[in-house]
Amino acid sequence: MTTASHRLHGHLIGIPGSRERLNTPALILDLDAFEANVAAMASFGRRHGLALRPHAKTHKSADVARAQLAAGAVGLCCAKLGEAEALADAAIDQLHLTSPVVTPAAIERLVILNARLDELSVVADHPDAVDAIASANAGGRPLRIMVDVDPGIHRTGVASAAGAVALARRIADAPSLDYAGVQFYCGVQQHIAGYADRRAAIAERTDYLRTVIDALAHVGLPPMVVTGGGTGSHAIDAELGVLTELQVGSYAFMDREYGDCDLDGGGRAPFATALMVDARVISANMTGMATIDAGLKAFAADAGEPPVLAGAPEGSRYFFMGDEHGAIAGPAGAPVLGARVTLAAPHCDPTVNLYDAYHVVRGDTLVDIWPVTARGRSA
Amino acid sequence: MTTASHRLHGHLIGIPGSRERLNTPALILDLDAFEANVAAMASFGRRHGLALRPHAKTHKSADVARAQLAAGAVGLCCAKLGEAEALADAAIDQLHLTSPVVTPAAIERLVILNARLDELSVVADHPDAVDAIASANAGGRPLRIMVDVDPGIHRTGVASAAGAVALARRIADAPSLDYAGVQFYCGVQQHIAGYADRRAAIAERTDYLRTVIDALAHVGLPPMVVTGGGTGSHAIDAELGVLTELQVGSYAFMDREYGDCDLDGGGRAPFATALMVDARVISANMTGMATIDAGLKAFAADAGEPPVLAGAPEGSRYFFMGDEHGAIAGPAGAPVLGARVTLAAPHCDPTVNLYDAYHVVRGDTLVDIWPVTARGRSA
Repeated sequence: MTTASHRLHGHLIGIPGSRERLNTPALILDLDAFEANVAAMASFGRRHGLALRPHAKTHKSADVARAQLAAGAVGLCCAKLGEAEALADAAIDQLHLTSPVVTPAAIERLVILNARLDELSVVADHPDAVDAIASANAGGRPLRIMVDVDPGIHRTGVASAAGAVALARRIADAPSLDYAGVQFYCGVQQHIAGYADRRAAIAERTDYLRTVIDALAHVGLPPMVVTGGGTGSHAIDAELGVLTELQVGSYAFMDREYGDCDLDGGGRAPFATALMVDARVISANMTGMATIDAGLKAFAADAGEPPVLAGAPEGSRYFFMGDEHGAIAGPAGAPVLGARVTLAAPHCDPTVNLYDAYHVVRGDTLVDIWPVTARGRSA
Repeated sequence: MTTASHRLHGHLIGIPGSRERLNTPALILDLDAFEANVAAMASFGRRHGLALRPHAKTHKSADVARAQLAAGAVGLCCAKLGEAEALADAAIDQLHLTSPVVTPAAIERLVILNARLDELSVVADHPDAVDAIASANAGGRPLRIMVDVDPGIHRTGVASAAGAVALARRIADAPSLDYAGVQFYCGVQQHIAGYADRRAAIAERTDYLRTVIDALAHVGLPPMVVTGGGTGSHAIDAELGVLTELQVGSYAFMDREYGDCDLDGGGRAPFATALMVDARVISANMTGMATIDAGLKAFAADAGEPPVLAGAPEGSRYFFMGDEHGAIAGPAGAPVLGARVTLAAPHCDPTVNLYDAYHVVRGDTLVDIWPVTARGRSA
């Protein structure tokens, strides 16, 4: 996949110091930090006997997926069919779809994707969708379905243990489907800032999950796989010992949301900021303030302002100034016209989704350009 | 440009009722409303003797640009070089860059673009940038430069009439540059909800602009073009009679931000919502609430929630539920599993920038797919 970033910057790959020559805003992946993050989570999974199925909704990248699989991941999660199709086109297999697929057009694509891949699973939370998928897949290789259990967020999932049992039975009874287990994703709880508070919330929800699993086991449908969790809960999930597979995503990049969280109860989690945006000062006519070329089209806006990492005086902060611009201001003055300012992503998933490619660097040298393979593939 | 949307939906073009068969979330452009909006603003410009130079940062689309040019626009504005390059690649000419270009890498691209196009102009707000552009363009066809005047937002622009005079003189004195006029964009004031308040704010700022223009005229550098304004101020700008050219963008689509504004002092502005997102209910296990497949990757998050237009009971509202999902809830119950829900964009520019293509409809029939030509081209 040749992106506009490749056309603009491909000639800079491997040239020492070439990061300085990138046109901005540019999405930057610090390869040293990224590789360390991937290795650290892989090691964590091995130590605790937990399978890792990193979530591709964070990175949407075949290159990142390959690095995670090479480190031992059992496969990838995808949020949407289009994301899975894009990764499949890039020869990534072992995919799990974490959102229900319900419309006829989408189910048709699901069945085609199942025939293309060695391994595909998808969640369901409603009997009508199970029936429709079973019918569409009749005669095909059985499609693996997991029962999505609502952890109380009320986003997706069955609402009770009884609902889980009924749905699991329906899946198990369909010749064209395989009952593959349970998904339980405590999304809201991932970002509780304090470890003790987060642990208490996850533990309470996991008690509920145990009742669901017990009910399934009671009718002869114990889940082989219990998938869920995330970067915010991975240490807690390992300790509680109910999940068999972690859907961690943000650990590979880290962002401000997770940077603000104590991830392991001791502030020792070995994940560092690997994802950033390089921007440039394009106007500097005010005292103590400068304007950079990165605004609402350069950073996701749902999680506050991006933190300033480098290139501006100590204590500088960023403020959104519309679609195309942001301001850098602080007590120690502003960076000068043309200065390069590096910022972290406030929230990595929707920030990555704004860019066509990662500019992969080691230190100040551009070493590769990775397309955001599934960018915009939300359908 | 063949996008993922073309591959997924190209076969549906022209099939009656095919909007119902689109995979979601899908960015929808209602062609009847769009064409009426374009015609109405073109008519407004003609009535008031104002040139229109619609802003491509809103739509990033060669197809939309062609429609605006066909209706009489004198050219297009682009926010960033990459946006202008993408439109130039699609054979759109007469471009004006509304952000300063200051780094060596960007200035090199600017000079190349100037050689490619029949007409290109760019703003400057600093003597160093003017000197660098003049030097890089030495021997080339003179590059048209406008003095960007800060209307008090402190985003870009010279900070005083004296600064404008000094910069205009510097431009006029450079053999490789043409002094082309003044840009004055009251961005913050565009969204003041009440017409009288907005009019008072724009009028006060326009008084300042007059002093800048008088100072320029006094030294023999009267601006031939005074460009600025937007959808929020177009009626006021026409009445005040200082701008010669309007940089209107959102009028073509309309979004909640401008839908909430009284645009002409009588609530009679003839612009209708033309841009929307079709989504689907993918989970419906809670009473009074349903989950759709459109979240932070489907709508810009800087301007609140997207309004629900159709497909849900009266009084329904949308709530973000993370990167991939949103909730529909209301006093009259929720839509059923699989239902199609249509929402408006809360803020059109960064919403469009999330999608690879517009699904162009007349009523319920997909009639075309237009790539978002310059999507993600923020550098």
